[in-house]
Amino acid sequence: MKIGVADTTFARVNMGGIAMDELRKHASVSIERVTVPGIKDLPVACKKLIEERKCGIVMALGMPGRQEKDRMCAHEASVGLISCQLITNTHIIEVFVHEDEATDDRELAWLAEQRTREHSRNVLILAFSPEELTRDAGTGQRQGFPDAGPARR
Amino acid sequence: MKIGVADTTFARVNMGGIAMDELRKHASVSIERVTVPGIKDLPVACKKLIEERKCGIVMALGMPGRQEKDRMCAHEASVGLISCQLITNTHIIEVFVHEDEATDDRELAWLAEQRTREHSRNVLILAFSPEELTRDAGTGQRQGFPDAGPARR
Amino acid sequence: MKIGVADTTFARVNMGGIAMDELRKHASVSIERVTVPGIKDLPVACKKLIEERKCGIVMALGMPGRQEKDRMCAHEASVGLISCQLITNTHIIEVFVHEDEATDDRELAWLAEQRTREHSRNVLILAFSPEELTRDAGTGQRQGFPDAGPARR
Amino acid sequence: MKIGVADTTFARVNMGGIAMDELRKHASVSIERVTVPGIKDLPVACKKLIEERKCGIVMALGMPGRQEKDRMCAHEASVGLISCQLITNTHIIEVFVHEDEATDDRELAWLAEQRTREHSRNVLILAFSPEELTRDAGTGQRQGFPDAGPARR
Amino acid sequence: MKIGVADTTFARVNMGGIAMDELRKHASVSIERVTVPGIKDLPVACKKLIEERKCGIVMALGMPGRQEKDRMCAHEASVGLISCQLITNTHIIEVFVHEDEATDDRELAWLAEQRTREHSRNVLILAFSPEELTRDAGTGQRQGFPDAGPARR
Repeated sequence: MKIGVADTTFARVNMGGIAMDELRKHASVSIERVTVPGIKDLPVACKKLIEERKCGIVMALGMPGRQEKDRMCAHEASVGLISCQLITNTHIIEVFVHEDEATDDRELAWLAEQRTREHSRNVLILAFSPEELTRDAGTGQRQGFPDAGPARR
Repeated sequence: MKIGVADTTFARVNMGGIAMDELRKHASVSIERVTVPGIKDLPVACKKLIEERKCGIVMALGMPGRQEKDRMCAHEASVGLISCQLITNTHIIEVFVHEDEATDDRELAWLAEQRTREHSRNVLILAFSPEELTRDAGTGQRQGFPDAGPARR
Repeated sequence: MKIGVADTTFARVNMGGIAMDELRKHASVSIERVTVPGIKDLPVACKKLIEERKCGIVMALGMPGRQEKDRMCAHEASVGLISCQLITNTHIIEVFVHEDEATDDRELAWLAEQRTREHSRNVLILAFSPEELTRDAGTGQRQGFPDAGPARR
Repeated sequence: MKIGVADTTFARVNMGGIAMDELRKHASVSIERVTVPGIKDLPVACKKLIEERKCGIVMALGMPGRQEKDRMCAHEASVGLISCQLITNTHIIEVFVHEDEATDDRELAWLAEQRTREHSRNVLILAFSPEELTRDAGTGQRQGFPDAGPARR
Repeated sequence: MKIGVADTTFARVNMGGIAMDELRKHASVSIERVTVPGIKDLPVACKKLIEERKCGIVMALGMPGRQEKDRMCAHEASVGLISCQLITNTHIIEVFVHEDEATDDRELAWLAEQRTREHSRNVLILAFSPEELTRDAGTGQRQGFPDAGPARR
């Protein structure tokens, strides 16, 4: 199965490059990569990766800015990514890191890398051994920051 | 009729496991289960349960976090779940427990279990004897917390 | 033409029963009724009434609760109902009574009944003599509370 | 080309009647009119005007009320109208006058009439000489209240 | 490949004219232009540019006003533009300049021109050498205001 990687020039971390590095560390898979200007360009970019370049699963990587307008862009992109999945019957793992989740550039870079790497592993599991995720059902997994863990311990 | 159960690793309670337990307590039905990372992955997961694994009804179980961003994720997932139902002409019962509905982890675990069990019974009724629901029309049923009851008593 | 009536067990007034009573008072029409747990289950329920049970028009009756989350549910349901209408080229008259429109249970019951009855008559007009509505174009009609009336008198 | 005119009984001004008057003042066109209860009924009404009554362009006229709920209804209707246009490849000119744009009933009636008349002329231009609009590109046109004008003068 | 340019009479800067000027400066491409009244008319205008006038990529140019209502219009237009892209498998580059991004008319005119020109170059790259964008992945590119730059330097 080919894996698609779509990222943006707007993001302040090379999330697509990190995703490819992590995917290749764990599996010898064929990867198709595309970069678009911003997160609102991701839904159609993902659709083309699926339909024109035959990807069986896609990562959509983006970094919404700090303003209210940016939050709205992220929302619009997310709605589009979900529609795209419904049209194509294909998973798209959205990896968005909001600039305001981090206190400074250093933490932002760390968080973007960490979350991208963890989600890259999720993508491989979802593509090749989805039943493994059921073992972690309801365990409060998080990507980037520490896991929340289960409510009952 | 096969029943689909889709849940997440993000949730802090094994909602999928609880749903399967409750469904099996009341009926000997065939169940297809899938676990995805987060609630935004649920719409396509449900579509695949319906179209690829031939489920006639699906439960979509998730636990949105406490932040504004999480509320937005829940909204996006809900819109996707409704679209999925319209495309497939198939009911998907959404069982979302918002972390901020509970005051602590203990109540959260209780609420998630309770709501999941009550909705599991709804799923069986909707699948096998939908006319029974009409008897409860307008009676203020709630899942988890106590029923609101009818406005006129 | 068959009329569909979809309501919920979440509502605190038997809106579906009231709608059927009012429809039958004014016309001898064939009615198909279905009850679902909550308002987010209404869009697909209406689609099935239209496509599987051959209704030519449908009433979608619900009672969103007082919380912010409930307002969001109502919004999601409304978007789904509009999509459903566009897919099927069939009118669905949404009759939602928000719990916070009334000051107490007594007024809530009154409002739900009143609005349901007035909209039931709208449904009959839309189904059987739609040109009658043009006579009331721009006259500030309301359902339940008093009409706003025209801006110019 | 037939022009569709869809309005509501909820509005407090006969916007459909005004639109027809203005359209006929400027062109001898065939008009199909329909009136529905509220703005959320407009998307499917417009779709039926396009597909069943063969309109090549449609005006969707409505007057959202002053409450937060009304703003949400207007949003839902707008999303539906845009979807309808995408499905049918047909322009629908939305003419919404929010009650809170005017300070009293008199101004409301004036604004509704003015905006409806100006948009009626837009509809004729869009239908019969769309290249004329390009002459006004970026000139800050408004409908009802005075034009904003270009930023550079 | 033909490039579509859609703009509005509502905008206060001739964004379509600027886009055409910039596109022609860098490439001898065939351009199809259309102007519509407002941003909510852009989605279907873009769809017609793609399907009826055979454009392979489109620019959607608009200038939302300062009010809350205008922000909602921009949101609705954006959702429609994303849907249109998903239906047509074609990129539409949205170039929206919000009036409240600038402190006065002079800055507004400057920003609208600058952002339109930078996005016009993006459109050419996306159309003719999309792999070039990957070189800028994660470098914090902005259009109009200065680039944010990468988080790690």
